[in-house]
Amino acid sequence: MFAISRSSPLPHSDNGYAAIRARTEALCAPLATDDYQVQSVIDTSPPKWHLAHVTWFFETFLLKPFLAGYQPLDARYEQIFNSYYNSVGPFHPRAQRHTLSRPTVEQVYEYRAHVDRHMADLIESCAREDAALMGKRLTLGLNHEQQHQELLLMDIKRNFFANPMYPVYSANAPAASAESAPMRWLDVPGGIREIGCGGGGFAFDNEQPRHKVFLRDFRLGSRAVTNADYLEFIDAGGYERAELWLSDGWSAVRERAWNAPLYWLSLDGEWHEMTLSGLNVLDPAAPVCHVSYYEADAFARWRDARLPTEAEWEAAAGGEPIEGNFVESGAYHPRPAAGGDDRQWYGDVWEWTASAYSPYPGYRPLEGALGEYNGKFMSSQYVLRGGCCATPVSHMRATYRNFFYPQDRWPFTGIRLARDG
Amino acid sequence: MFAISRSSPLPHSDNGYAAIRARTEALCAPLATDDYQVQSVIDTSPPKWHLAHVTWFFETFLLKPFLAGYQPLDARYEQIFNSYYNSVGPFHPRAQRHTLSRPTVEQVYEYRAHVDRHMADLIESCAREDAALMGKRLTLGLNHEQQHQELLLMDIKRNFFANPMYPVYSANAPAASAESAPMRWLDVPGGIREIGCGGGGFAFDNEQPRHKVFLRDFRLGSRAVTNADYLEFIDAGGYERAELWLSDGWSAVRERAWNAPLYWLSLDGEWHEMTLSGLNVLDPAAPVCHVSYYEADAFARWRDARLPTEAEWEAAAGGEPIEGNFVESGAYHPRPAAGGDDRQWYGDVWEWTASAYSPYPGYRPLEGALGEYNGKFMSSQYVLRGGCCATPVSHMRATYRNFFYPQDRWPFTGIRLARDG
Amino acid sequence: MFAISRSSPLPHSDNGYAAIRARTEALCAPLATDDYQVQSVIDTSPPKWHLAHVTWFFETFLLKPFLAGYQPLDARYEQIFNSYYNSVGPFHPRAQRHTLSRPTVEQVYEYRAHVDRHMADLIESCAREDAALMGKRLTLGLNHEQQHQELLLMDIKRNFFANPMYPVYSANAPAASAESAPMRWLDVPGGIREIGCGGGGFAFDNEQPRHKVFLRDFRLGSRAVTNADYLEFIDAGGYERAELWLSDGWSAVRERAWNAPLYWLSLDGEWHEMTLSGLNVLDPAAPVCHVSYYEADAFARWRDARLPTEAEWEAAAGGEPIEGNFVESGAYHPRPAAGGDDRQWYGDVWEWTASAYSPYPGYRPLEGALGEYNGKFMSSQYVLRGGCCATPVSHMRATYRNFFYPQDRWPFTGIRLARDG
Amino acid sequence: MFAISRSSPLPHSDNGYAAIRARTEALCAPLATDDYQVQSVIDTSPPKWHLAHVTWFFETFLLKPFLAGYQPLDARYEQIFNSYYNSVGPFHPRAQRHTLSRPTVEQVYEYRAHVDRHMADLIESCAREDAALMGKRLTLGLNHEQQHQELLLMDIKRNFFANPMYPVYSANAPAASAESAPMRWLDVPGGIREIGCGGGGFAFDNEQPRHKVFLRDFRLGSRAVTNADYLEFIDAGGYERAELWLSDGWSAVRERAWNAPLYWLSLDGEWHEMTLSGLNVLDPAAPVCHVSYYEADAFARWRDARLPTEAEWEAAAGGEPIEGNFVESGAYHPRPAAGGDDRQWYGDVWEWTASAYSPYPGYRPLEGALGEYNGKFMSSQYVLRGGCCATPVSHMRATYRNFFYPQDRWPFTGIRLARDG
Repeated sequence: MFAISRSSPLPHSDNGYAAIRARTEALCAPLATDDYQVQSVIDTSPPKWHLAHVTWFFETFLLKPFLAGYQPLDARYEQIFNSYYNSVGPFHPRAQRHTLSRPTVEQVYEYRAHVDRHMADLIESCAREDAALMGKRLTLGLNHEQQHQELLLMDIKRNFFANPMYPVYSANAPAASAESAPMRWLDVPGGIREIGCGGGGFAFDNEQPRHKVFLRDFRLGSRAVTNADYLEFIDAGGYERAELWLSDGWSAVRERAWNAPLYWLSLDGEWHEMTLSGLNVLDPAAPVCHVSYYEADAFARWRDARLPTEAEWEAAAGGEPIEGNFVESGAYHPRPAAGGDDRQWYGDVWEWTASAYSPYPGYRPLEGALGEYNGKFMSSQYVLRGGCCATPVSHMRATYRNFFYPQDRWPFTGIRLARDG
Repeated sequence: MFAISRSSPLPHSDNGYAAIRARTEALCAPLATDDYQVQSVIDTSPPKWHLAHVTWFFETFLLKPFLAGYQPLDARYEQIFNSYYNSVGPFHPRAQRHTLSRPTVEQVYEYRAHVDRHMADLIESCAREDAALMGKRLTLGLNHEQQHQELLLMDIKRNFFANPMYPVYSANAPAASAESAPMRWLDVPGGIREIGCGGGGFAFDNEQPRHKVFLRDFRLGSRAVTNADYLEFIDAGGYERAELWLSDGWSAVRERAWNAPLYWLSLDGEWHEMTLSGLNVLDPAAPVCHVSYYEADAFARWRDARLPTEAEWEAAAGGEPIEGNFVESGAYHPRPAAGGDDRQWYGDVWEWTASAYSPYPGYRPLEGALGEYNGKFMSSQYVLRGGCCATPVSHMRATYRNFFYPQDRWPFTGIRLARDG
Repeated sequence: MFAISRSSPLPHSDNGYAAIRARTEALCAPLATDDYQVQSVIDTSPPKWHLAHVTWFFETFLLKPFLAGYQPLDARYEQIFNSYYNSVGPFHPRAQRHTLSRPTVEQVYEYRAHVDRHMADLIESCAREDAALMGKRLTLGLNHEQQHQELLLMDIKRNFFANPMYPVYSANAPAASAESAPMRWLDVPGGIREIGCGGGGFAFDNEQPRHKVFLRDFRLGSRAVTNADYLEFIDAGGYERAELWLSDGWSAVRERAWNAPLYWLSLDGEWHEMTLSGLNVLDPAAPVCHVSYYEADAFARWRDARLPTEAEWEAAAGGEPIEGNFVESGAYHPRPAAGGDDRQWYGDVWEWTASAYSPYPGYRPLEGALGEYNGKFMSSQYVLRGGCCATPVSHMRATYRNFFYPQDRWPFTGIRLARDG
Repeated sequence: MFAISRSSPLPHSDNGYAAIRARTEALCAPLATDDYQVQSVIDTSPPKWHLAHVTWFFETFLLKPFLAGYQPLDARYEQIFNSYYNSVGPFHPRAQRHTLSRPTVEQVYEYRAHVDRHMADLIESCAREDAALMGKRLTLGLNHEQQHQELLLMDIKRNFFANPMYPVYSANAPAASAESAPMRWLDVPGGIREIGCGGGGFAFDNEQPRHKVFLRDFRLGSRAVTNADYLEFIDAGGYERAELWLSDGWSAVRERAWNAPLYWLSLDGEWHEMTLSGLNVLDPAAPVCHVSYYEADAFARWRDARLPTEAEWEAAAGGEPIEGNFVESGAYHPRPAAGGDDRQWYGDVWEWTASAYSPYPGYRPLEGALGEYNGKFMSSQYVLRGGCCATPVSHMRATYRNFFYPQDRWPFTGIRLARDG
């Protein structure tokens, strides 16, 4: 890897590129070559594909437009590693990513090195007049790569779960936990509040513009819902009681035979959970994880509560420090709340909100192909807040809007309860 | 039919029940017995089933709990004509409604008569202490029946479209129309506004409670988008330009081979449209109808506009009179705006809003099985406003929230544009 | 109805047309108008469609080519009531037949009358030079109509089974039966045998030409397998033992959750069976019916036997009289073997053979569109022999080859066992 | 690898085991680790899985029952590498084989070495009383491995075709070919003939017993149908003419948009063909390959011919020498007939026959779990004869019955024409 030159006019910190690129590769270090090829379900991508796609992003949006004379390593990668940018051109069908044994893992690492070398050239040689736009794209590319770092971990976990041998990604067994703190209700006053990002550091287009909302008084749970909490729901017949569920959720329960979160397995009468450290006995004190929106919603209804809106979440957590169990902990798994003061706003589990993923008032997508980054997904998905144990801490913000379909369970998704004030 | 007795303690107007029940049957008068049996796609129900289900509603929620000694005509109808109320019991699968040739149409009319007779008894004999709850349920049942009057027309149209003979439901050919008024932009100031129903007459639970929202200044189109407007979008390659579409919408376009609204057919190079009066040449001045949310959204984006939120819609239209082209016109088809002052807020076409169908702050579903009426559908659907040419005018309110999935096209759905102020 | 004139040069018996056409309508007499519209699964067709399609056959292959100046009642019926004759033109998709509420039942009967009138004209006026070809087509058309008489009963049964009210088609409850005769093994010597139709009366193209086959000595069961026999298989865990099943059959068992023949229902611990007389207690002595090829094959394997080939079947039964429980009995249900001499070769149940439906050596399909009648279905289906309780006796022959897919269960299909000699 | 001891009582030739096992690994030599993991469609298996499954076969049917004290390398492989033997126990779903990144390729080779070592022990130590049964199983295991050698090549080709980079497996470009010899008709007299295997060397159970059939006189094409022949069919609109197709075949054409054999691609107006040497210009003289039964049948019908039955094929080719273009040629692709005398009975392409895959009269599957090897697939498939360019020559026999579903195109399948005599 290389260090970005101090003489570059780019506004980015001088070693961000190299560090983030290296971090991606470090996350892949535990993988066998075979593991790089797997796409166990259509939601996931092969790790190899992630490695190449984030590289494609720099090549497509920085090297090709800005580096004079740039020659791609292989012109066919433009199509193969395009994820969904129609404006760039056709792309290999998502469901078929697992069929691409070529380029090999080795060739993908060569592709990364090729692009990294030219990115260094570009950063060195960047013309002052391009610096602002390039700086924005570079920052976007690095945030994009960080998103895929999280996806890598999500997808590896899902892929390993498809294997009855339950391979181990990381030997870090989570420490035995004490009991979790009891949940309390935090009162938050309503009124006119502002949410969204209004400037300052980097933010995705979907977090903008900052705008006013009117909120009624509300209450939020003081911590994430735990496995112990969720077990009560299961034991109370939660998965058999239609009246607790949204109609689409009840259909999902019936058709997919859901009776527990995604990675739970009952072995000899004891609940276990697939983790990135293999199959472990379920820790009752840890946050429940890998639940769908429907399960989160049904659990809340059973508790005579509801899920918070994203505006409520941001109004409550917006001023809190971005601290918690992020990917840097190396646990790759949510941890029990650390005591009375640990509110778990950030890290551990992405918290489902009751807010459909919609444009903020005045929203404008980026120009050109990058306008496809976020805006076109604004239907039928829900917003999640706060990051998780697979998110890089430097990637998180109070205004960050993640989004998944309500049936998705393979992200590190969890639950925070809300009630009217 | 019968008239409800004046001596009844029920707060409902004295002939509402009979009139609404009779209206449903009048809508079925043009049908052959064969037509009552058709469910051309899973979205629709056989007309016979509608006739019976609305009757089941009165039997289940009024006669069984309140009329001492009530004997059902056939105990098996409880299951067959239950739509989706898990709390009542199991129900026949929706997709299989077309297989139920028994009870016959004749038997279904007998069922209606049986229930109507006992409803008259109940209304006569209603104990004063039950009057409030019964009155609410009666009103709900009548509004429910009005909803199915609209569904009947939607479904008959869809069913007839499946027949290459394109049967005619009503001989009322729409009059030839003049050109439509040009669309203007209506400026609406933002600020704190109140939406939702706060009391007064009947409203569904999903319209409540009335609550404050904060809106920015915005502009709305002065009338619905016309077929002529939409033809420009088609002619500009709207259905081939991925960048105009939401990702899920673009998938729908590709997978379903959409290239025009649902009922449009190009015959000898001329656009025609299936209507309840048969196959007609498309009227350019009439509102475009039978478009999905995705098409409405893509059209708006192409016009450098967007869809209004439901709060914007209600803020703009909430004070307008409930007038327009409703089912009573007998046209069963949207009409061109009648001149400079006709803003088409109500009637003609349901207008897609950009708002996902979610609970209002403080929302509480009804108690018991009736809680399944609205609340459990609050995911993955969008709100539509204003009613359509198949809606009874007495059924409409400014706060009325209709909802469909974004891919649905068989309702009378249309487009009103919005822009930021 | 009319009688065909004695002066006609057509070789057909003078009242066959009228009688067979009338018989079809008589079979529909118990139906309500609603029943005519149902297609409960893609395999079945609405009774109305059957009535019209057999009429279309005469119109397409006799009236249009041979009756000068013939005017169709409605030109659109050519497409709507074409089943699968690509050579005639496009046809309405099979799965969508249930959506065609128009023409109505009444109009379909008018269509029948229209064609019948013109068929009478044609038969009267038939030019001597056309008589041979017309006679063949007339006979084919009548045999075709007889096939649909059987399909009508099969389909009505399947449609009524989709209704939890289990409607009754015929009030003829089968008489209580004595025990069935024990099955014996009939020895049949092998050698060169001839099968297929070599001339004489009418036969379909697929029964021709008559040809030699070499058979080894074999044995056949003396009667059809009974419900009592089949219950032993079920009670022995037949549906749970993979080793008894063909691979595709085992997949069907798992995916479709088969655990008994199609129409069996266990109510309060007692096996019942849907019949055209409604839901009855299972008669152990009656032939098992409505089993797939896979079930027949698995049952035979469990009995250390196999299914006969069609050549074996014909070699054994070819000389037997065409007698048995056919549609004329009015039972519409298989009956127990009537004693030691009742071998049930004909009627009761179609007997699955081990022979894939393939062309006989030297097979030639009919010329033109009628070549699509049989030949194009000669893949992936199995031959069944002997007719059933829904077959007209005059329609049956020793050489008759019926065919269905191995997973089909809605025909009246049963089992005869075979063993090597 | 090891040599099997000369002192072994096993009747097998002394180095067959080692040679065949080594041959499998040699076929995998051109693969990158990534390639071992791909299952591009449900029909194929990852090469890694093939390597392990054939090893599992020896472990399951020889080491576990016969080698005292044998310890499996990993007990979980019993399930993971079981293909479809219900009698052995549960198995990983076929469609999910691509998700098994563990065991890795390296571990699979260790598994092979582990089993090979113990197989050597077993062969050394084989008790005389077990020798006969063990010898049969060993031979079966080796023939099984040879079948998977062919499957490996078929599957690699299919997998590489899923990659728009069209990777090259073998650099052996086929030599430019002269024109093919014209096809002549070979007359074969009918009468009583014997087919099937009656003893002598190894044969699968499905080739037995040898038995008499009666054949009419017939004619067979003197060579396989060529690409040039097939192009005439395409150019004559073969894929647009419903009357040429079986009904199921026509559905396949429409639903799968077939317009040429599987691996044909039209690039700049010129037909190319995917081969194991990459994408090449189509050689008109080479046998057409990768056609379904439906295409073979339609082509034959268009030529006023038909496909041969397997009895006809064996009667004609049974006495011919087993020579031709087998896997040992290293071409991995069918070659043009080498002149007037090259009848291509063996090698080049598997020839579809008109015979459904059914048990021969008197057929008995093997005892126990090995009875699942062949018999349970005897429904809905067709027999193919003669081997192909991916078959080991030592694996071929005149009586060999291969079988595929009529829609399968990824095997090396071709066409030989037949006519009545």
